[in-house]
Amino acid sequence: MLKLYYARNTCALASYIALEEAAAPYEAIRVDFGAAEQRGPEYLKINPKGRVPSLVTEWGILTETPAILAFVAQSFPAAKLAPVDDPFSFAGIQAFNSYLCSTVHVAHAHGGRGYRWADDDTSFADMKRKVPQTMRECFTLIENNMLRGPWVCGDAYTICDPYLFTISGWLGRDQVDITEFPKVNAHAEAMKARPAVQKVLREERA
Amino acid sequence: MLKLYYARNTCALASYIALEEAAAPYEAIRVDFGAAEQRGPEYLKINPKGRVPSLVTEWGILTETPAILAFVAQSFPAAKLAPVDDPFSFAGIQAFNSYLCSTVHVAHAHGGRGYRWADDDTSFADMKRKVPQTMRECFTLIENNMLRGPWVCGDAYTICDPYLFTISGWLGRDQVDITEFPKVNAHAEAMKARPAVQKVLREERA
Repeated sequence: MLKLYYARNTCALASYIALEEAAAPYEAIRVDFGAAEQRGPEYLKINPKGRVPSLVTEWGILTETPAILAFVAQSFPAAKLAPVDDPFSFAGIQAFNSYLCSTVHVAHAHGGRGYRWADDDTSFADMKRKVPQTMRECFTLIENNMLRGPWVCGDAYTICDPYLFTISGWLGRDQVDITEFPKVNAHAEAMKARPAVQKVLREERA
Repeated sequence: MLKLYYARNTCALASYIALEEAAAPYEAIRVDFGAAEQRGPEYLKINPKGRVPSLVTEWGILTETPAILAFVAQSFPAAKLAPVDDPFSFAGIQAFNSYLCSTVHVAHAHGGRGYRWADDDTSFADMKRKVPQTMRECFTLIENNMLRGPWVCGDAYTICDPYLFTISGWLGRDQVDITEFPKVNAHAEAMKARPAVQKVLREERA
């Protein structure tokens, strides 16, 4: 039985949805960021980075969303969540997810977590002001160059989709209207129609 | 024949070394960042993100270091650069590389590329001041929790190694002495002793 440690309103949602789509045997365990549980000694034993998601497997613990997503796709091949045996196509999926984690998620994080990279309140305010611009730039690229439609990789639903859905869900908070990006918006609506996504969103909000 | 677009002193070094270690048929093409060639129309056709590395393959173009490294490992299995058929071990490699790209590279980038996330000179100076602290935190975690030694994954040399070598090579510029981290330092020295690494460093500096 896999154990996914997640927190509400974080990128862990992507792994949660992927596990559900894969029909994987798993348990989802909420980490309370409000109580700073991710910085407590118990959780730091699971993930010394003090972040979510973490996936406890029978072989050890995995962290980092792109790695967990690839693991789910490779471990549950019947769900066909990635073309794991085609090096180029699989790498294309990794490239998309890598862009989300290293550029888009990072752009978003400057809105609320500027203390990771600076110390002064004036810098935090400056960073926060720029977030709508950087997120808009990222989603312009996603809309025009990456998202094939209806799913990220075209007709096949893959591990890119829950990850894009998770991050496009942050646009509102970042003061960017998702409807500026018609394909991204249609993607989010298509995601919300999937039973696995509905189930996870219900559980996350419960 | 693969074509790797790279620039000096960038994370593209990791993919360059991996291609060489894999004995892949490839050509390395330098992009001149000094002349802002990465923002020119010719290069933007290859990679609309205006970044390196980009790998041109017969099936299309790949970007993002973790994706290119996984592609090289999966395409040239004889080089045994990753346990591609073991989902957990392969995901562990992806997790390490994902941490390098989304956390460590990002921490470093705040030293010279603060304009990506803010607009004011005071913010850039604030970010730059914090880089030695954030890089030291990242490398403390790598030293204590991630680098098994002698290679990242233990006795097996993998696609994690050229990537770690590339980023640990930036510590000096970030005003962190690599010898504060004995295992990371020994790793860098072991990398420099490898013929493939020596060849790539010679070519990169030529």
